Amino acid sequence: MKRRIGVGLVGFGTVGAGAAKILQQNALLIQRRVGVPVELVRIADLDVTRDRGVAVPPGVLTTDLRQVLDDPAVDIVLELIGGYDTAKRVILGAMAGGKSVVTANKALLAVHGEEIFEAAARHGVDLGFEASVGGGIPVIRALTEGLAANTVLSIYGIINGTSNYILSRMTKEGHGFQEVLAEAQRAGYAEADPTFDVAGTDSAHKLAIMVSLAYGTPVNFKDLFVEGITRITPLDIAYAKEFGYTIKLLGIAKFLRGDQEDEIEARVHPTMIPANSPIARVDGVYNAIQLVGDAVNDVVLYGQGAGSLPTGSAVVSDVIDIARNLLRDASGRVPPASFQREQRRPLRLRPIEDITSLYYLRFMVLDRPGVLSQIAGVLGQQGISISSVLQKGRKEGQTVPVVIMTHTAAERHVQAALREIDRMAFISEPTTLIRVEGHDE
Amino acid sequence: MKRRIGVGLVGFGTVGAGAAKILQQNALLIQRRVGVPVELVRIADLDVTRDRGVAVPPGVLTTDLRQVLDDPAVDIVLELIGGYDTAKRVILGAMAGGKSVVTANKALLAVHGEEIFEAAARHGVDLGFEASVGGGIPVIRALTEGLAANTVLSIYGIINGTSNYILSRMTKEGHGFQEVLAEAQRAGYAEADPTFDVAGTDSAHKLAIMVSLAYGTPVNFKDLFVEGITRITPLDIAYAKEFGYTIKLLGIAKFLRGDQEDEIEARVHPTMIPANSPIARVDGVYNAIQLVGDAVNDVVLYGQGAGSLPTGSAVVSDVIDIARNLLRDASGRVPPASFQREQRRPLRLRPIEDITSLYYLRFMVLDRPGVLSQIAGVLGQQGISISSVLQKGRKEGQTVPVVIMTHTAAERHVQAALREIDRMAFISEPTTLIRVEGHDE
Repeated sequence: MKRRIGVGLVGFGTVGAGAAKILQQNALLIQRRVGVPVELVRIADLDVTRDRGVAVPPGVLTTDLRQVLDDPAVDIVLELIGGYDTAKRVILGAMAGGKSVVTANKALLAVHGEEIFEAAARHGVDLGFEASVGGGIPVIRALTEGLAANTVLSIYGIINGTSNYILSRMTKEGHGFQEVLAEAQRAGYAEADPTFDVAGTDSAHKLAIMVSLAYGTPVNFKDLFVEGITRITPLDIAYAKEFGYTIKLLGIAKFLRGDQEDEIEARVHPTMIPANSPIARVDGVYNAIQLVGDAVNDVVLYGQGAGSLPTGSAVVSDVIDIARNLLRDASGRVPPASFQREQRRPLRLRPIEDITSLYYLRFMVLDRPGVLSQIAGVLGQQGISISSVLQKGRKEGQTVPVVIMTHTAAERHVQAALREIDRMAFISEPTTLIRVEGHDE
Repeated sequence: MKRRIGVGLVGFGTVGAGAAKILQQNALLIQRRVGVPVELVRIADLDVTRDRGVAVPPGVLTTDLRQVLDDPAVDIVLELIGGYDTAKRVILGAMAGGKSVVTANKALLAVHGEEIFEAAARHGVDLGFEASVGGGIPVIRALTEGLAANTVLSIYGIINGTSNYILSRMTKEGHGFQEVLAEAQRAGYAEADPTFDVAGTDSAHKLAIMVSLAYGTPVNFKDLFVEGITRITPLDIAYAKEFGYTIKLLGIAKFLRGDQEDEIEARVHPTMIPANSPIARVDGVYNAIQLVGDAVNDVVLYGQGAGSLPTGSAVVSDVIDIARNLLRDASGRVPPASFQREQRRPLRLRPIEDITSLYYLRFMVLDRPGVLSQIAGVLGQQGISISSVLQKGRKEGQTVPVVIMTHTAAERHVQAALREIDRMAFISEPTTLIRVEGHDE
């Protein structure tokens, strides 16, 4: 039996420093759990001088990542550099050398996950990626182990802290997106270029990973429908409140049992959810994932979705898990994709046009008699049934909002109706559509 | 490699039927995850005639539990009868026969956990007990794996659905304990004899298990401080609201880093928590556990803490976990107590008199001048500092409540002060003390 487990870190940035700190500070605790010492023996980073607040013994730090990959004392490689090319080379190189890998790289896994899963299986090594979704929240384990007995019926994830911070502030203060974004950038909660977060891409990466694990299916990332929060206005937030909803950027997945063939939905977009639902009150940079299983019903996991130590916590939990496997010669005991490799099956991802949902539609109209009847007429022709209408503050001759909540309707029909309505002369700007999750009453 | 995993069930009650249903309905899913079929081959129960809504093949059901324990086709025994004596015999008997065990029996584990953990280690088998705390919520895995890299600083658990249902209804409707209890009994949310739930015993069992896993320490169950919810009144709930708090029955554990020796606190009692804290809004029969780790900060797990299928979900997740170990000859890969056996260390459990807390004190006094000054005087002598006083509805000569919130104070001093105050002539009933979790401001 191995007398110690060696860890090699590639990427000594925020998350890398967090993982290193935990491995040092909680070394005794980790040894008591694992049975042998778990030691950080190599760290590779381009910058070997900056102080990360972690004491690194001499000889450990190097600029040459090959020194990590080639070191026989390294059993587990932590890929924490992010990005695609080098990260993938590090992961595949480590695996080829018989080393297990832990990564927080959701973008890489979302796009190249299948290739990496396959490499892990082929080389008989473990791949840990708890840190790739929800920071320190143990959601990957919930999907692969804790809820493994369940057919996952749906997933609702607040999985991007920046977007949630911005929407929370907009909701609380009534300010506009740009204003809150600027403030979030000053406070360090949003990047200088926030596109990745506010456009929904980051959430989609995480959703793709969860879908892959929940349903045992490869996911073609490009097929996910993704819409960000940049077009959400204080007006929509105020209306949402009036209807008893909160607007959140959600990653949503649903399992659709078919007569012929099962399908899944997987989409990221701003969503109105009932204000009393357990994830509606998840504010600020916190993340939360609601998983609905056919046996367990709804389970919600909540915590810090980012940050040096929370994400480092997930990284080191994977290290402990893999160390336990190494000591029992049981690498690959839980396949990285959670289903046995030969048991994974491509499920059809339903295109967004084919989904059904409740819809919030905000029309900006020139206030004059007959407008509502024309809008309602087009919706009716498309078979879309209205559950309520809000038309406040009449100002004849001026532009005013008309808000309509629909019963369950087909996205295809809603889009067709909006195309027709938005061409009408009394419509002053493109209509705002926000999908609503909740019960059709 | 094994071609299938055989499961034997002892106790075909609510949870047993849930587990059986899941093993049947999701058989294909489970096989896709594990790699081989997982089959329920034996079920023992005294009642072999009642319909549990599960189709049982002929020859599977027996009244003789030895037929489960002795069947070589049974790899994993599910002990779901509850109680102490027979349950323990089943578990130890199964282990002695080289079978792994899954149980939902929190009472047994809280009281005889050490002996059972030891037997699992000695026989080289696995013990799964995810279902023992929080029903379908994967909190055991969070403690043993997901947050394994953390020193757990504290645990706050709403871990008894009956008590939480009663407190939630009392809070919502302003009714008294007895009235709501009777209603909960009619609705099937409380047992005919609810003592176990409302007196805090069930919560304490679950807390003892979590403490054992979080800190790698044996727990002497009798040392836990346990106080139930029977004395909570609508008046206290109303005052709590006024101060911005909600009253929940919590299982609380804290890690206290000592100069000489680390200690832990572990206690169950009604607790005022800030109304905006993530677990304050957990209502009805839902459970939630907030874990605070030194790296991950706070993580909250929320879900259904009881019920046939939710608890069955946890049982079967353990079956899958153990099956994965059996197929890799890696039983005992995660020690049942989460720490390596030789690495467990008794931590001193701090007696309740030695804790410090914020306190809510409700004095029922004969309204006359000078009363508050006398109460404050005694508190002051004991070094207890007052943060606020509420004395509403003056009715000279009648009994009125005087409510005092303290700054952080020593339980010992508070108890001493109450002993003295409760002897005073103007005090008309024993003073109500509710511990408050929150920041001392």
